[in-house]
Amino acid sequence: MQKNMPDIKKIEKTAIKAAVSAGDILKKYYGSCLEIEVKDEMSPLVTVADKQSELKMREIISADFPDHIIVGEEFGSDIPLAEICETGKISWALDPIDGTTAFTAGMPTFVVLIGVWCGDKPLLGLIYQPISNEMWLASGDKPTTYNGKPCENAKSATNPLVIATTSPNYLSDNSQNWWNKLNSMAKTALFGGDGFLYGSLASGNISLVLEEGLKWHDVAALIPVVENAGATIRDHSGNRLKPYQESYTVLATRDDELLAEALALK
Amino acid sequence: MQKNMPDIKKIEKTAIKAAVSAGDILKKYYGSCLEIEVKDEMSPLVTVADKQSELKMREIISADFPDHIIVGEEFGSDIPLAEICETGKISWALDPIDGTTAFTAGMPTFVVLIGVWCGDKPLLGLIYQPISNEMWLASGDKPTTYNGKPCENAKSATNPLVIATTSPNYLSDNSQNWWNKLNSMAKTALFGGDGFLYGSLASGNISLVLEEGLKWHDVAALIPVVENAGATIRDHSGNRLKPYQESYTVLATRDDELLAEALALK
Repeated sequence: MQKNMPDIKKIEKTAIKAAVSAGDILKKYYGSCLEIEVKDEMSPLVTVADKQSELKMREIISADFPDHIIVGEEFGSDIPLAEICETGKISWALDPIDGTTAFTAGMPTFVVLIGVWCGDKPLLGLIYQPISNEMWLASGDKPTTYNGKPCENAKSATNPLVIATTSPNYLSDNSQNWWNKLNSMAKTALFGGDGFLYGSLASGNISLVLEEGLKWHDVAALIPVVENAGATIRDHSGNRLKPYQESYTVLATRDDELLAEALALK
Repeated sequence: MQKNMPDIKKIEKTAIKAAVSAGDILKKYYGSCLEIEVKDEMSPLVTVADKQSELKMREIISADFPDHIIVGEEFGSDIPLAEICETGKISWALDPIDGTTAFTAGMPTFVVLIGVWCGDKPLLGLIYQPISNEMWLASGDKPTTYNGKPCENAKSATNPLVIATTSPNYLSDNSQNWWNKLNSMAKTALFGGDGFLYGSLASGNISLVLEEGLKWHDVAALIPVVENAGATIRDHSGNRLKPYQESYTVLATRDDELLAEALALK
């Protein structure tokens, strides 16, 4: 191995260890009538479990990679997002609980998200559900795996089309109109799910996800998981998602054909 | 025990065996890109897993209780719903997969539902999620249990209020307007979940569920699970749910106070 090449195997091992350790903390709090506080309109709830879980991941990652940058939902970024790329350093984006509402409701669809990037290049994406013990992993250029087995069905996903979004409340009026048109095309819509939806897309179990208001600590994991499964993830104009932005609109589809069809309905 | 008294302990044992056996079948198909067919507008998908799972439950129940009536989502009712009450017989209402859309999407929120009734009296309600291995059970007059432990928090459920519905698409225009008002009151809304939501309500993790278009094979299980947890389940006019009807509107709340508040917003 060249000296300056990132050691993907070591990153993968640390990422899995961090996700499982975070999940072990979340399992302790799951379904136990948590004290919750309202954060903001788009991500309304935060719990003590979010914080403990992120701290645990930070501890594990810092121990293995003391010079890497860490960006987390609860404790922010070591340096401003806009400055990460030019450092040339590897950075980790962490969401200790994606789907806090589902978590506090005791529903096993919240996930732990980890994305690892170097400059414009994704090195790893991980989606982990600790209660059902499901993990999607995109490591390096390898195909996304689901619980260790390659996801090979994303491109041939569900027919009739199943489209999904976490909550219509998170969509702007324009996006709601678009969603309604997609709904007419698809006939079947699924609500809820947060980051879990992108795992389902990678596995070929749903056809399309439309969302907005996502943060870098969300999409950093989702981009490699979706793309390494052969599916497509773009913004609402059909452009590729640029790393290290503050906010994202997302349209993920099983393939480019459905992407084009969906964009034509906008 | 008197001769004509239903043997709740034996019913409970059979119900758990049926649910777990159904769940074992569902686990085999979970997340495996099923061939699905569109059924109708309100419950759009059906799979081979629904049918196998219901047949298995019917086999187990019939073996233990050959004279009981069985009503199932996929294979209908032994006799018309409207005639069940006057037979005086015990009847079982089965939904082998409540949340078929979630099931086909590989999301662990679909549930197996079993309700056992004698005349106007619920004998048992059971909600089972086989992937996360979560079970709510209301047996006889005993408090609802979650994985064997009594649910004691329904009445003190979440503050800030968390309200939930499976899909806004399943709500009529009038109910959507009502939902929007409830949403403003609650600040936080959860989508998706199907029968799982009523388990979350019984556990005190959500505060209110608003739905419509539910069938007897859904509510037969939900009524005892919610009521034996000390929470409230009514129709959209605030009336108690009458057994053996073809279709139901449902408003379930953590307590009577929230029921009154919700009805006042209609």
